Amino acid sequence: MNRGQRPQAPSWHVERWFNTEQALSLESLRGRVVLLHAFQMLCPGCVSHGIPQAQRVAAAFDTEQLAVVGLHSVFEHHQVMTPAALRVFIDEYELRFPIAVDRAEPGYAAPRTMRAYAMRGTPTAVLIDRAGRIAWQRFGRPSDLELGTVIGQLLGEAVPMSPDTVAEDQESARCDATGCAIAE
Amino acid sequence: MNRGQRPQAPSWHVERWFNTEQALSLESLRGRVVLLHAFQMLCPGCVSHGIPQAQRVAAAFDTEQLAVVGLHSVFEHHQVMTPAALRVFIDEYELRFPIAVDRAEPGYAAPRTMRAYAMRGTPTAVLIDRAGRIAWQRFGRPSDLELGTVIGQLLGEAVPMSPDTVAEDQESARCDATGCAIAE
Amino acid sequence: MNRGQRPQAPSWHVERWFNTEQALSLESLRGRVVLLHAFQMLCPGCVSHGIPQAQRVAAAFDTEQLAVVGLHSVFEHHQVMTPAALRVFIDEYELRFPIAVDRAEPGYAAPRTMRAYAMRGTPTAVLIDRAGRIAWQRFGRPSDLELGTVIGQLLGEAVPMSPDTVAEDQESARCDATGCAIAE
Amino acid sequence: MNRGQRPQAPSWHVERWFNTEQALSLESLRGRVVLLHAFQMLCPGCVSHGIPQAQRVAAAFDTEQLAVVGLHSVFEHHQVMTPAALRVFIDEYELRFPIAVDRAEPGYAAPRTMRAYAMRGTPTAVLIDRAGRIAWQRFGRPSDLELGTVIGQLLGEAVPMSPDTVAEDQESARCDATGCAIAE
Repeated sequence: MNRGQRPQAPSWHVERWFNTEQALSLESLRGRVVLLHAFQMLCPGCVSHGIPQAQRVAAAFDTEQLAVVGLHSVFEHHQVMTPAALRVFIDEYELRFPIAVDRAEPGYAAPRTMRAYAMRGTPTAVLIDRAGRIAWQRFGRPSDLELGTVIGQLLGEAVPMSPDTVAEDQESARCDATGCAIAE
Repeated sequence: MNRGQRPQAPSWHVERWFNTEQALSLESLRGRVVLLHAFQMLCPGCVSHGIPQAQRVAAAFDTEQLAVVGLHSVFEHHQVMTPAALRVFIDEYELRFPIAVDRAEPGYAAPRTMRAYAMRGTPTAVLIDRAGRIAWQRFGRPSDLELGTVIGQLLGEAVPMSPDTVAEDQESARCDATGCAIAE
Repeated sequence: MNRGQRPQAPSWHVERWFNTEQALSLESLRGRVVLLHAFQMLCPGCVSHGIPQAQRVAAAFDTEQLAVVGLHSVFEHHQVMTPAALRVFIDEYELRFPIAVDRAEPGYAAPRTMRAYAMRGTPTAVLIDRAGRIAWQRFGRPSDLELGTVIGQLLGEAVPMSPDTVAEDQESARCDATGCAIAE
Repeated sequence: MNRGQRPQAPSWHVERWFNTEQALSLESLRGRVVLLHAFQMLCPGCVSHGIPQAQRVAAAFDTEQLAVVGLHSVFEHHQVMTPAALRVFIDEYELRFPIAVDRAEPGYAAPRTMRAYAMRGTPTAVLIDRAGRIAWQRFGRPSDLELGTVIGQLLGEAVPMSPDTVAEDQESARCDATGCAIAE
């Protein structure tokens, strides 16, 4: 969607985090591109396609430029896809990126973040731009080529600046067609 | 590489074209991103990786935004990888994008365009930006994720304008994170 | 191993069955070749390799000639790989062949059948001949070519006969290089 | 097909051989199972499926038990799929098993051996039993599981014996479900 028309990404509602010492949020990741990968541990399409793709993205980019965040959005079989089971899954599949447990909402099968993003199911990939807006969201199995194309475009966009950081940030633009380097 | 430091792409030296009624050139493609895919028809890595990747790219993008151009750069076994054999290969593999036969240079095994780009072998993929400069070049087997990332960044860059087309071209910027649409 | 030297397959110790109305046993399957596929639902190699392979085998052969039997042999994380979780897994992955839950043995991490077969882990594939003897056992990721070769050889072996069924069974040999047909 | 009804395999008509110092024939391979793999070097299904499968078979079995033989059966574009081009192809794709050039027959597009076997196109795989009879023939893309199953059954069949070699050959039966070993 056109850059000027991207909606602000809804906040994340998280029961608990894995693979990170402190809770992450859209605010704490502002300035980076974010791949939010919603999955369920017993969803075959997530295990065969979405999770390996998220791992490839996590391995290919500097996390200071592109952060991969998993979101365990359980909307069925809640009794067996518990945080305890997820912990084993994360360990067995050697997932290293931060993973949030989407917070259940009483009276609904789908958890709160999943509902806020109007996700149709799992896997769903969401790309959030440096300004915290949804640039792209896809249910199912996007190709690496499609995902990479959106990532490339978002990485190429300038980092949004607050007034008092304009001066130094102008020096730190290090993203070009070969990738993105941390500012010295 | 940094946008300001990209070298101008060398001209193509072509013996003959397949899959296009008129010869293509960097000049005729100015304003588009170009994927130049150099291959040899009997090169296993080209057949198993490079050519299918070029086909996926050709299928995924509007050719007015991103043009895929094959380059048959024969640097060995010239006597069997002839244009006549290439024609059969193109037909059997159902390749639809334009393909140039790189022009042989007397006294050298590698043909002229291959030498001008200092390619190390086949397959080699080159991404040329809208201004006709080399943004990225890779020998071997880049992933779709890597290739897509560079493509996305280049598609997101503004079309370079000559003075007399500024006015209308400013209206035609249609590339964003969901892809690129032809200007109405 | 040489046909004459194959050991008798140990009995199966089963807590409960899925995908079958009645319990199966080596005795009830005598006369058929059996692929016993031991797995854990959260074992990545089982999910990506072993289970799809077992499904391909189940789809390729007449179950009256070759029976595929899953064995959920949990030797770690018992608290999350419960029968209730397995039921969801079987449903989500659309597994159709009979699956036994290997019986836990107090004081041991590995369950009883797994220990009786001296399996080194999961996935483990075991091929049992028509006479109920272990013909081949493999931990890890055997190729379809290897697995198929052993299956073909075992299918080609004559059905063992008890004295009073010799006469009619001699008429029913229907296994040859194109496959195996049920006797009319 | 039933063992007793297998037709005798037609003789091979060969213009020239690659990867073998002496010409091979059904007679010289009697006693072994033979995978005859008919292909064309510019046939996409041969390059992506048939040839890699033939290579896997060649790598998996002792050539004294199962011999893989390639057959270059050109029935179109004869002028570019010449023996000289095939030599380059064999070299580039690092094919190591013996490969015969099927002999052209004046007045026909398809060469002689291809016609004798009534092949429908390329790739075609033929499995010939130890007695030189066609046990299985398949145009297209058989799975490794299917191919392996037929191979396993054929390897399990006894070596046919001529009267004067019965005594020693009875000692040399070394094929069982774990594979086939050369007689000591």
